[in-house]
Amino acid sequence: MSQDLGDALAEVEAIFETQLLSDFPAVNELCRHVERYRGKRLRPTLVLLSGLAASGADRERGLSHRHRVLGAVVEMIHMATLVHDDVLDEADVRRRGATVNRLRGNETAVMLGDYLISNAFHLCSSLDDPGINLELGSVTNTVCEGELLQLHHRDDLSLDEATCIEIVRRKTAALVAGACRLGGRLAGADAERERALAAFGEATGIAFQIQDDLLDLAGDAEVVGKTLGRDLEKGKLTLPSVLHLASSGPERREAMLDAIARRDADALRRELAEHGGVEIARTRAAAFIFEAKEHLAMLPESPARDLLASLAEAVIHRNH
Amino acid sequence: MSQDLGDALAEVEAIFETQLLSDFPAVNELCRHVERYRGKRLRPTLVLLSGLAASGADRERGLSHRHRVLGAVVEMIHMATLVHDDVLDEADVRRRGATVNRLRGNETAVMLGDYLISNAFHLCSSLDDPGINLELGSVTNTVCEGELLQLHHRDDLSLDEATCIEIVRRKTAALVAGACRLGGRLAGADAERERALAAFGEATGIAFQIQDDLLDLAGDAEVVGKTLGRDLEKGKLTLPSVLHLASSGPERREAMLDAIARRDADALRRELAEHGGVEIARTRAAAFIFEAKEHLAMLPESPARDLLASLAEAVIHRNH
Repeated sequence: MSQDLGDALAEVEAIFETQLLSDFPAVNELCRHVERYRGKRLRPTLVLLSGLAASGADRERGLSHRHRVLGAVVEMIHMATLVHDDVLDEADVRRRGATVNRLRGNETAVMLGDYLISNAFHLCSSLDDPGINLELGSVTNTVCEGELLQLHHRDDLSLDEATCIEIVRRKTAALVAGACRLGGRLAGADAERERALAAFGEATGIAFQIQDDLLDLAGDAEVVGKTLGRDLEKGKLTLPSVLHLASSGPERREAMLDAIARRDADALRRELAEHGGVEIARTRAAAFIFEAKEHLAMLPESPARDLLASLAEAVIHRNH
Repeated sequence: MSQDLGDALAEVEAIFETQLLSDFPAVNELCRHVERYRGKRLRPTLVLLSGLAASGADRERGLSHRHRVLGAVVEMIHMATLVHDDVLDEADVRRRGATVNRLRGNETAVMLGDYLISNAFHLCSSLDDPGINLELGSVTNTVCEGELLQLHHRDDLSLDEATCIEIVRRKTAALVAGACRLGGRLAGADAERERALAAFGEATGIAFQIQDDLLDLAGDAEVVGKTLGRDLEKGKLTLPSVLHLASSGPERREAMLDAIARRDADALRRELAEHGGVEIARTRAAAFIFEAKEHLAMLPESPARDLLASLAEAVIHRNH
């Protein structure tokens, strides 16, 4: 199984690289830089496993070439969001290397992100299935709305939990959910299984983002391998802080608001670590993973379904 | 005919606005700002006229609802490029109003551009024709390559005419050509007519960009209604300067290079106006329009074909 998966992921990678090939050496050089960003390959893995899990034991039917193409598509969209996010966050480091914006300036990073988005849609169109294109477009619309909503709430100290979850659901979880949903659809999943996979992906995606936010607040930059503390610097209140503010008394609230106002990452980190904020957020993320695994019960038992459950667990136990 | 066209363009506009509607008031407010950018509507007009011209006298067959949808798609892509271009150029003014980046910052402008690109692909997918999606993806890949190539050649004083035309062909003319090609295809044009429309669009698009570059160098900011001189400030050598440099003796070359090095827009403007640079570029643009009209000869005579020819002429005679 994991051999199969490894082979399939290698094919995803080959499709990804081939799609981005340009007539111009300067463009190819930029794309090679982006390939360095690729890490966990969570989204293509979810496409492949969802395909296998949707079709139960019938492994051959589950994993088609179309799954590999779709895996490359969602990874390309993800890379585009990383490149544009780094521009938004003025981040210098990603995966232990300089970001595109740091090396080549914001202009090139904006355009490279556009090139990735455009190529993702182009590659998706090669699947020759308008329904998949329509779903992908709907997912990326949702992702952009989430990012715009987050920008709209910058420096909003009264951001509430529901809005915060809505931002996360859109900017991060929508693409993870789309990867699972379409992975299932390409394997011929019926509507019920497709919905279960999408719900699994959404809950997993929300937990993933909470863990990301925790790492940005309280992680070790050496281990995480990217610029940390950007959320605070950019006035982004994320779920750990929002939950802590909502559950604290006046004294702790004041200490938090003071740390946020002073953009004091160390004080914020201490406050969250010592007064339960980190724990609340971890518990919330674990609850989303519990929910995610419940949705998997709609699918037939299979090694792929077990792997999906393990992958969801790993999302909240990672330190990078 | 022009009544029909006006009605059709109003429908394009309605489709455009409906597609961008979001659940979030903050997103809708940003989109209303972008609608203010919309001016000549050159690209949707070309989609509609190409549809009519491809089918000759058979007007009803030419203009379908699909043409209106495609018109909104290409206009949305065009708006996205304007929003991201303004970030790249740090432009403050467009169509006599503040740009999104000026009003809301670069981050929001980057994300709004992404939202427009995403919605354009989503709307295109509603046409339920993977061939159209594939062509659109290929066009936007080409546009991004053109922009990346231009960024790569910033501050390159040895930029030659061929590379300069290649940049323009990709970053501007590809979308105009795509609008004409797909407008024809949706009207059932055969391969020959589709090619003729694409060639017409490409030549018209190149001439359009030369005129844009001339306006940036030598136009009246009050009339043009946007920030001028940005090409020079951003180290972008455009065709008027490249042609002038190539055709000048050592003395004029030195004066040009000096003006460029000092980012002295007035000196560059005087040099081009007084020593033939503006005239050479105008002549080159006129030659592209001549070529564009020759391609129209492959199409049957019709009022729409005549309008395409007039539109191409107007491209090089505009002052904004």
